[in-house]
Parts: sequence; C-alpha cells; structure tokens
Amino acid sequence: MDQLPLYRRLAAHYRAAIETGALAQGDRFPSVRALMGRHEVSLSTAVQLCRQLESDGWLEARPRSGNFVRRPRRLAVRPLAEPIAGQAPDPAQYVGINARVSEFIARGRQAQVKINFSSARSAPALYPAEALKNAATRALRQHPELLVSPPSNNGNATFRNALAKRAMANGMLLAPEEILVTQGCIEALNLALRAITQPGDIVAVESPTFFGLLQVLETLGLRALEIPTSPHSGISLEALQLAIQTTEKIKALVVVPHLQNPLGSIMPDAQKANLVELCRANEIPLIEDDTYSALSNDDTPLKALKAWDRDGNVIHCASLHKVLAPGLRLGWMNAGRWQSRVEMLKYVQSRNNEELAQLAAADFIASSAYDRHLRRLRSCLKTQRARTAEAIARYFPTSTRLSEPAGGLALWVELAPGLSSKALFDAALAEGIFIAPGLMFSNSNRYDGFVRLNCGAPYTPEIDSALQRLGEICNKLPSR
Amino acid sequence: MDQLPLYRRLAAHYRAAIETGALAQGDRFPSVRALMGRHEVSLSTAVQLCRQLESDGWLEARPRSGNFVRRPRRLAVRPLAEPIAGQAPDPAQYVGINARVSEFIARGRQAQVKINFSSARSAPALYPAEALKNAATRALRQHPELLVSPPSNNGNATFRNALAKRAMANGMLLAPEEILVTQGCIEALNLALRAITQPGDIVAVESPTFFGLLQVLETLGLRALEIPTSPHSGISLEALQLAIQTTEKIKALVVVPHLQNPLGSIMPDAQKANLVELCRANEIPLIEDDTYSALSNDDTPLKALKAWDRDGNVIHCASLHKVLAPGLRLGWMNAGRWQSRVEMLKYVQSRNNEELAQLAAADFIASSAYDRHLRRLRSCLKTQRARTAEAIARYFPTSTRLSEPAGGLALWVELAPGLSSKALFDAALAEGIFIAPGLMFSNSNRYDGFVRLNCGAPYTPEIDSALQRLGEICNKLPSR
Repeated sequence: MDQLPLYRRLAAHYRAAIETGALAQGDRFPSVRALMGRHEVSLSTAVQLCRQLESDGWLEARPRSGNFVRRPRRLAVRPLAEPIAGQAPDPAQYVGINARVSEFIARGRQAQVKINFSSARSAPALYPAEALKNAATRALRQHPELLVSPPSNNGNATFRNALAKRAMANGMLLAPEEILVTQGCIEALNLALRAITQPGDIVAVESPTFFGLLQVLETLGLRALEIPTSPHSGISLEALQLAIQTTEKIKALVVVPHLQNPLGSIMPDAQKANLVELCRANEIPLIEDDTYSALSNDDTPLKALKAWDRDGNVIHCASLHKVLAPGLRLGWMNAGRWQSRVEMLKYVQSRNNEELAQLAAADFIASSAYDRHLRRLRSCLKTQRARTAEAIARYFPTSTRLSEPAGGLALWVELAPGLSSKALFDAALAEGIFIAPGLMFSNSNRYDGFVRLNCGAPYTPEIDSALQRLGEICNKLPSR
Repeated sequence: MDQLPLYRRLAAHYRAAIETGALAQGDRFPSVRALMGRHEVSLSTAVQLCRQLESDGWLEARPRSGNFVRRPRRLAVRPLAEPIAGQAPDPAQYVGINARVSEFIARGRQAQVKINFSSARSAPALYPAEALKNAATRALRQHPELLVSPPSNNGNATFRNALAKRAMANGMLLAPEEILVTQGCIEALNLALRAITQPGDIVAVESPTFFGLLQVLETLGLRALEIPTSPHSGISLEALQLAIQTTEKIKALVVVPHLQNPLGSIMPDAQKANLVELCRANEIPLIEDDTYSALSNDDTPLKALKAWDRDGNVIHCASLHKVLAPGLRLGWMNAGRWQSRVEMLKYVQSRNNEELAQLAAADFIASSAYDRHLRRLRSCLKTQRARTAEAIARYFPTSTRLSEPAGGLALWVELAPGLSSKALFDAALAEGIFIAPGLMFSNSNRYDGFVRLNCGAPYTPEIDSALQRLGEICNKLPSR
C-alpha cells in the first residue's frame, strides 16, 4: 500500500529508458522470462509490466516475434500554440454564459448518455471510499451528539488544523483560525468575489477558463475580462499588463495557477512571484483557485500563489472535492485582508458547514494514507490521460492538437482546423457521448474549435470506442 | 415511546381543568394517594405529575398542608400591544445591521458566557441524537461509495420524497422534483432573494424580524422596508397595503407566518389567504420562511402560505435545523415560477448538498419516530417557555410585558418603560449572561426596549438564577 505496485514502478523505469533513448524505437523489448530474471519478479508482475507499457503505447506486440519498443503516437500530435498576448483584450462584458452552459448541461441530462467526457471528475473507484466511510463511522461514534449540536464557527478545529499543516507543504503559513471552511471551492470563489467587488465591476479571468467561474461572475453581475493564457505556463503576464494599462480598473483577478481548467497549464514559480507582485503593485486583489494542485504528476507539492503574498492581497481558495472525495463538499479559503468579511458573508449566506464530513476528512488527510492515496490517484490519472491522448492520436484527424498537462483530470483538444465543437457535441450526443464543447469556456466564440475531454475514469474498451467514434465524426464533419 | 409520558398527559388534563375553572385558584389539589387511586397510576407517576404542575406554576405546595391550585404568575403579565398599522412605514433603507449584529455577537463570543439566552436554538439533548447517528451509520453501510460519488442534482431523491410527503400535511402538493435541497433555510432565503431582486430593490419584511434576514438583505445590497407586525396574528395586512400604496415598488416580501421570530405570532388561515392574494394582485413575490411551524404547541400541522398559492408566486423555504437536528444543515425550498432560476443559482453558489445528512434525515422523517420526537420536543419547549415566563413574572419589574407564543423557542420581552435592552445586554454580559437585545431585530432603534430570550434549554436552577439576575438588573437600570 505504501508504494505503487511493483509493475508500475518498473513501467516508469522503462518509459524513462525509452524517453531518454536508451531503448530506441523498433528495439526488441526483453522477454517476460528475461524480465523475471533481470528484476527478480514473478511471472505475473512481468506480464503486467508488458501490458501496462503496451496499453500506454510504449510497446507493440508482434505475433510470434515478441514485444518491440515504439514511440507512442501521442508524441507525434502537435501541442497547442501559445496565445497571442500583445493584442488588447476584448472589452470586458457581462457574461452571458448561463444560458449557454445550461443548454449544454440540460441536453446532456436529457440524453441517454453512455460515455460522459464532459464533467471534470474522477471515477468513485479512484477515491478511498472504505477509509472515509470508516472515518465517518468513527466520528459518529466518538461524537454522539455531533448531528444534534450546532456546527463550530468557521469550521471544525481539527479539520482546520489538518488543512493548515498540509498548507505548509504548499508554502503557506496559516494559523488554523485563518482558515474558513466552505461548501466546496465554488462557495469560496463566490465569497471572495462578493467580498471585494460590486455588481458592474470588471474581473479579469484566464481565457479559456472553466464555466463554473463564468457562471459565478454572471450571477453576481460582474463583467469578465478574458486574459490570454498559455497552455504551458498559465496566464500571460504581458497580456495582463496590457489589460491593466488599457481598460477600466480591474477589481479582481481569478487565476488557477496549477493544472488550469481546461488548459492544464502550471505556472512556473518565477511567474507566480511576478504575478503576485504585479497584482500588489496595481492594487488588484488576486483570487487563487487551487483545486487541482495535488493532482500534478510530480509528488513534490506545488507552491501556492499565496506563498508569495506578503500583504494579504491574495485570496487562496481550495477544495478536497477533486482530490479526496467527490461526495464531500469540502472547500476552504484564506482571504488575506478580507478574512473577517468573508467569514461574515459565509455565515450570512449558508452558516457554518456541518462537521461530520470535516471530521472524517481531517482523520484521513492527517495520516500518511492521504499521501498514498494521492500517489495512486496521480498515477492512475497519468495513465488515463496517456491512453486518451493515444486514442486521439490514433482516431482523430492528423491536424488535431492536444494539451500536455503534467497532471489533472482532462485534456484540452484543438480540433482540426474549421471543425466546430458545437457540431461535434450535437453529433456525439446523438450517440450517447457527452463532451464539453469549447464554447462553454469563454464568453466569446473563440474556443468553438476546442473540446475538453475528461480522463477521470479508468480506461475501458467502451471509452476507446467512444473516442474512436468522436474521431470518426471529426473526420466526417464539414468545416465551418 | 408512542405517546408523551403518562404524567405529562395527566398534567395537561389538570392544566385544562384549571384553565376552564373546573379547579379554582386556592382549591386543594388531590393528594398523591388520591391521584394514584383515581387514575390507577403508580406512586412515581403521581409524584411526577405534581412536580410538573408545580414547576409549570399551576400548583403551590404548602408545607404540611398539601398542594393547592394557583394561577401561574405569568398569566398576570400584560401581553404585548398590537402595532400601530395605520401610519406610513419608515422609508426603505439599506440595512446597516451587520456592524451592529457583528458587535453583539463578537462581544458574546469574547465574553465568558455562562448562560446563553441569545441564540434561537434548543439544547442538543432535545433532539434524537442516537436515532440519527444510527441512520447515518446505516446510510454509510448501505451506500459504500456515498462519500466518493458526486451528490445528486438538486438533492437526494429519497430525501426529497420524504419532504414532499411531509409537506402534504402542511397543505402543499409538491412533486419531489419540485423541491430543491439547500444549506439550511438561510441559503434558501439568499437564493430566493437573488432570484427575484437586483441590488437597490426594496424588500418588505416584518418588524421586528430576525437579524439573519436583515443581514441577507444588507449583503445583497437590498433595501428593507419594515412592516408593522402583530405579536398575535403576524404581519399587518393593513400596514402592508398602505406601504404598497405609498412607497416605491416592493420587489419581494419575506414573511415568517408561523412562530414568527422574534414575536412568536401565528397567522390565522384567513389572513394567510388574504396575504397570498394581496401579493398576487400586486405582483409582489412572497417568500415564506417556515422554519418553525413544526414547533407549535398544537400537533395539528399548520398550513403553509404556499398552500394558497395558485400561480407560483410564493417561494416556500424551510429547514430541519431547528426541528430535527441543529448539526445538519438541511434546508429546502420550492420557488414556484422561479424554480429553475434558484436551481441554477444554488448550483453556481454552492453546488449540490452532500447526501449523507439527507439520507440520515430521510430515514428518520419518513418514520413515525419523527412525529414522536416532535411531540416530545413541543412539550419540552412548552414547559421551558412556561417556566421562563413564570420567572420573568416573578423577577422582572411589574410593568414588563411578554409575548405568548403558541410554540417555538423564544419569548419576546418588552422591558419596563424606559429601560434599554442595550444597557441590559451590557450589564448582563458582564455577569456571563448573554441575551439578544431588541436592537438586533430591526434597522431602527424601535425595539431597544425589547429582548428575545431563548427557552431552548431544559430549565435548571442556573437558568432560574440568571433570569433572577436579569430581573434585578432591570430593577436597577436607569430609565433612558
């Protein structure tokens, strides 16, 4: 339990050997018997190793000849282009996204969906159901009056303690009392924006960004200013600077620094430092949505923007929804100099969170079992993303382009030139395949040529067939 | 378990006999031995019966003479006066209540509170802790993936089913899909107001009303128009009509028809019907906060305003927080013709509620154990209110006036003329007694002469001493 299974560790070793060139395309791969001897492993481990490499696209089995090294097809897919940063941004506008998003979601709910690539979520099987269930049962036994006592102000103390400890690894020094527990990260974002903006204000966001954020802006009467964002390094500081100089006062900036949704980009540390400073210097409150950072491939924790915050200008929002338990609505925030205001708003909006979920989660995240869970989850997601990318490389038109996120739940796919994600959505949904068209990720039509594909579920033949169908539809769709 | 304990039923019988005059003030009450024979009950039941009547103020024990019937002192306290309805209301204003409420609450938190009369809540001991704990444990066992699966849209189906069944008793015919589960009633009120108002709009509210609502209005940028409200029959329709005629357009009305907080009034059915019609005719969306109705003395369910709604103009909001489990943040709403809009807003604001609490509550409220719990809770609260009123009658200045709520958690006390609840708050808090001064229940200073006293905890000598101290302080406070 402490580690990945042996065959996965060996697979990582051989992947590295192929990537560095120690094993070249076309080379004969050691036989199962040779692997057993070389690594002193069982037959079953050696077989699993070969299967894993094959399913990830690194081996090709030739009948009666054995396994041969190959370069995965996905490596031949062109990566996404950098955005053009030097142009003035679109004028800020009241987002009109709710009607659009609601339509896509409503159609998905009404349809007979067989394969859902639309939501950014992992399969329940990837989460520690049993351990959390036991933790919750234990909490009920240890606190017999839990369900009939009013919940603690601002969150359960044990849970806030556990969060504060974990936050240290991300470079944040927070006292437990400086943490406010919320209904998921989305409530934290609502509270942050309510604390610092008035209806009509301009809020800068990444472009593309996740539709949940655009919906929050619209329902709060805020105007979204979309800032070009790199699929590799996150929000463009050059573009942001230009926006600061050329538009009305920006009242807040919302950024997903790690595994940006939908791009999957991770901001380099130097850029994070520059962003925090740029916002400080221009008196723009910086709201950080750090929902995904624990899903990065690398086990080394990423440093939050908040780690560079010296004067309370950064509002850090996070959640355990995607990383620990989709069934628990556990978010949290530190709002810097707006802390007492968000505490008041939280109380007025929805009161204090129930404590049972907090106690169960506190129990788990304070233990090393949480680290083991995260390592397994990251590894599974990596494989699932790789296999999805492999299928896209195989089935989609050759001019398709792909994000290369170093973690997370999803891929951002740029369809072949001229194809419309709306048209793909329509045709796919008719066959029970539900995707998130690029139109949902911006108030403009700029991303109609993109789709976000969720890779949260273990790869199955059904998923493979669905990706094949999507590719076939793309090959048949007329260009716009 | 199915009924109240025998001694309580007998106590109700004798209370009725005294109230109707069958037993008169000063009459000798039957001896314990006589009671045992007359009702064929045990010694312990007969003794408990006498104790209950004595503690409720209906019997006086004279040493070596036996028990004598008496009229409780509280019946001599003057009831609250009706509000003056024929005057034009104060101009609608942006509520400035947050600072005021926050100050009182913060001071309570910082103080060494020994007795808390401030919050409207019952003691945990009055709720079915064990049964709910077992229901939650069972739900965890029956749904092993519950904590790791995304919660159901708009709420858990079993829970919404159970709510819809219960709502029938309150005269509401709702399909389970027409019920949206929220984070307590307070989130439902937020969503209702967000769905139908814009910042700057005027919202009519009862006067006095609970500070939680005034806080919601302030944080949403709404203007509160306070409508005089009767301590007996609820909001004054005459005053409302006048306000409609004389002020700017009222964009919504929020009413607590049953056991209004803080007055404890219950609107008569005819008045509810008239209110629904008045709002319909004037195109004023009517938001009903029905948090307390299950706490009325009478076991016959009260009819919701929604029961008279024919065209979706009534938004019904309710919660299980006060009646079933203070530790569960379970509210729900039906928003009539704004249902799809509140569903969208709920999703954007905090996503779907976790399911564990919903399953545990569904299990319990679908059973007759819920009815038994409510009967016991009502009976306990009735006794607690009676004893608190008795203490006020004994200890407070004779010109004190009192609400006579037919249920609920609190009493609304009008202090002797010229006394300030702010001054009482200060003096009481210095001795560890925490009260809710009338200033918290309006944006005006109109209710500085009032306090709300919570009666949610079983009556103890400590509570009695605290009430005695409050009375002594009132007797010493200078008039304004």
